[in-house]
Amino acid sequence: MAATGDARSLAGLVGPGIRRRLLGAGVAVVALALAGTGCVQREDPAGASQAASNSGAAGAPAANQAPADPLPSWNAGASKDAIVAFVEAVTAENSASHVPPAERIAVFDNDGTLWSEQPMYFQLAFALDRVRALAPQHPEWATQQPFQGVLENDLPGVLAGGEQALVQLVMATHAGMTTDEFAAIVTDWIETARHPQRGLLYTEMVFQPMLELLDYLRANGFKTFIVSGGGIEFMRPWAERVYGIPPEQVVGSSIKTSFEMRDGVPVLVRAPGIDFIDDKAGKPVGIHQHIGRRPIAAFGNSDGDLQMLQWTTAGDGERFGLIVHHTDAEREWAYDRESSIGRLDEALDEAATRGWTVVDMARDWRAVYPDAVR
Amino acid sequence: MAATGDARSLAGLVGPGIRRRLLGAGVAVVALALAGTGCVQREDPAGASQAASNSGAAGAPAANQAPADPLPSWNAGASKDAIVAFVEAVTAENSASHVPPAERIAVFDNDGTLWSEQPMYFQLAFALDRVRALAPQHPEWATQQPFQGVLENDLPGVLAGGEQALVQLVMATHAGMTTDEFAAIVTDWIETARHPQRGLLYTEMVFQPMLELLDYLRANGFKTFIVSGGGIEFMRPWAERVYGIPPEQVVGSSIKTSFEMRDGVPVLVRAPGIDFIDDKAGKPVGIHQHIGRRPIAAFGNSDGDLQMLQWTTAGDGERFGLIVHHTDAEREWAYDRESSIGRLDEALDEAATRGWTVVDMARDWRAVYPDAVR
Repeated sequence: MAATGDARSLAGLVGPGIRRRLLGAGVAVVALALAGTGCVQREDPAGASQAASNSGAAGAPAANQAPADPLPSWNAGASKDAIVAFVEAVTAENSASHVPPAERIAVFDNDGTLWSEQPMYFQLAFALDRVRALAPQHPEWATQQPFQGVLENDLPGVLAGGEQALVQLVMATHAGMTTDEFAAIVTDWIETARHPQRGLLYTEMVFQPMLELLDYLRANGFKTFIVSGGGIEFMRPWAERVYGIPPEQVVGSSIKTSFEMRDGVPVLVRAPGIDFIDDKAGKPVGIHQHIGRRPIAAFGNSDGDLQMLQWTTAGDGERFGLIVHHTDAEREWAYDRESSIGRLDEALDEAATRGWTVVDMARDWRAVYPDAVR
Repeated sequence: MAATGDARSLAGLVGPGIRRRLLGAGVAVVALALAGTGCVQREDPAGASQAASNSGAAGAPAANQAPADPLPSWNAGASKDAIVAFVEAVTAENSASHVPPAERIAVFDNDGTLWSEQPMYFQLAFALDRVRALAPQHPEWATQQPFQGVLENDLPGVLAGGEQALVQLVMATHAGMTTDEFAAIVTDWIETARHPQRGLLYTEMVFQPMLELLDYLRANGFKTFIVSGGGIEFMRPWAERVYGIPPEQVVGSSIKTSFEMRDGVPVLVRAPGIDFIDDKAGKPVGIHQHIGRRPIAAFGNSDGDLQMLQWTTAGDGERFGLIVHHTDAEREWAYDRESSIGRLDEALDEAATRGWTVVDMARDWRAVYPDAVR
């Protein structure tokens, strides 16, 4: 194992190659592929200090660049050039490539595209933290898998239960409350929980270059959407503050929700059942359902984004597809074809034939994380 | 029967009180409640000329009003006052009632709230027209119910098949094509089909006062959404042109959609299965799924909007609920508690206890329809 400095974390207990897909309610498609796979190379064990160093670097470029550069954390090169060329093409007035503002729809995957996703999807860390937090109300969990495994940091014990165990974890943590209650739980967690290796708040592990890209697109009349395999209600409570993306522009996986009157007060209750899985071939469907028109630009990082990239870039006129390739084991993580989290294999091959821009994180990004607490 | 000048229309064939719910794919909740119920009172048989007269009236007020009036087609009175007071309250800076622009979400039912819905939901007229248009490709329909009944204008024959027959009609007309193909079909229809009694394009039967209300809210920082029991893909192709509401702000009932690669070209295919029914208790669920935060204003006209109004107005702070009461048999239609289309009964009672504004169409609206071809 090349990874993780925190042996106490569940992540540290997982051996190479372990992979499970979490097809449970709410999280829906959260692949439970934890740390220590071969994909994590040369990770800095001093994660937190490294991140702090990144942060310093991230803050600096804005001052060093010409004021006119809207993408100061992007190094000069083909990726940056391609982004700017696309935006200039669709915004150029009286041009054949011009796209009306209403049609300037850009969709972004979240995990691995807007923020990190190692050593496990952050929403899974949330689910595990919720099991721990709820344990006092569930004494039976002490001897009941998969909860016992979570509470004892025995992930092999959890995983022995297979997908069903993971569904149980998600149902126990993501369903059974009102939507308002769940939003409050997520908000509390996201404001306090820290990454076990980096020591950062999860919202400090968003990608500074992508924040600049979001701003740049919006400044050019684009409407930016998240289209994620993660839970839609896990992202909405903080996406506006962190990404500038309002709840109505977040698309994700969902569990069943029902309307009830409780003592004359209407509530929406989250039920333990899958409603929609917004991953792979589900992404174009989710885009269509929520947005109702084809985006002209799509940004992803894994094979889970393949169909979204295909659907977006197959439209008429100027189109833009971009893949964030995690090549930076020093500042973030390096992984692609063999990774159990954020596997990038088929989409990487197709990028060449379809003309998608592949960002080399180590080469193209001057900084990875922002310096300010967001 | 008091209604309809066009005896050839299917609508004219329906006796009083006939009602069926159409729980089919795509249309989902389109109640097949056709003309001639007791609710249609004193309807002008010269529908088209009456509508033209309405149109003339609709065009005039703007010039007769003070330029500052954003709602020229609304007569002075309690309804107009309530709307203006609400908007001024939430937009007043440094006020306890102030609502940030991002939270100024307003949701509008479509059928009966933004446009007419008699003698049948316009989407059902679309379905019947599609059966007629597709008949040459389906010679078997000549002797196969429910299609035979549609083709022979024998609606009792259609209705003899019950809900299953109506589901068949919708599946045959709303599924089995790509999303792009369906959008083109809807666009062609909406640009040419005319109301059997009024002779107007359906998009000429939108309510001028509601168009002004949409504009007024948007001018005050509101984001306006449609939340309709009708098919989401039936509304999106024209909602932006007619209402100024873009596709991503349309919420409605939907059928299953799947992603496919056809000869290397990605398509989304409409399948014959219900995905979501955006009516009654489904409306708050649809709002939550698409918008992700509770609206502060909701506008409806029937019991199908009850839960949307409850959910919206039960939130904290300033809230606004409004019901369009169809009281105008001269210029539009008059119906409420006994109507099989757009029944307004429970919600009308609850309006009094919850403080919702009830618009008396005959009294409150200076004009009903706009004068310009939209």
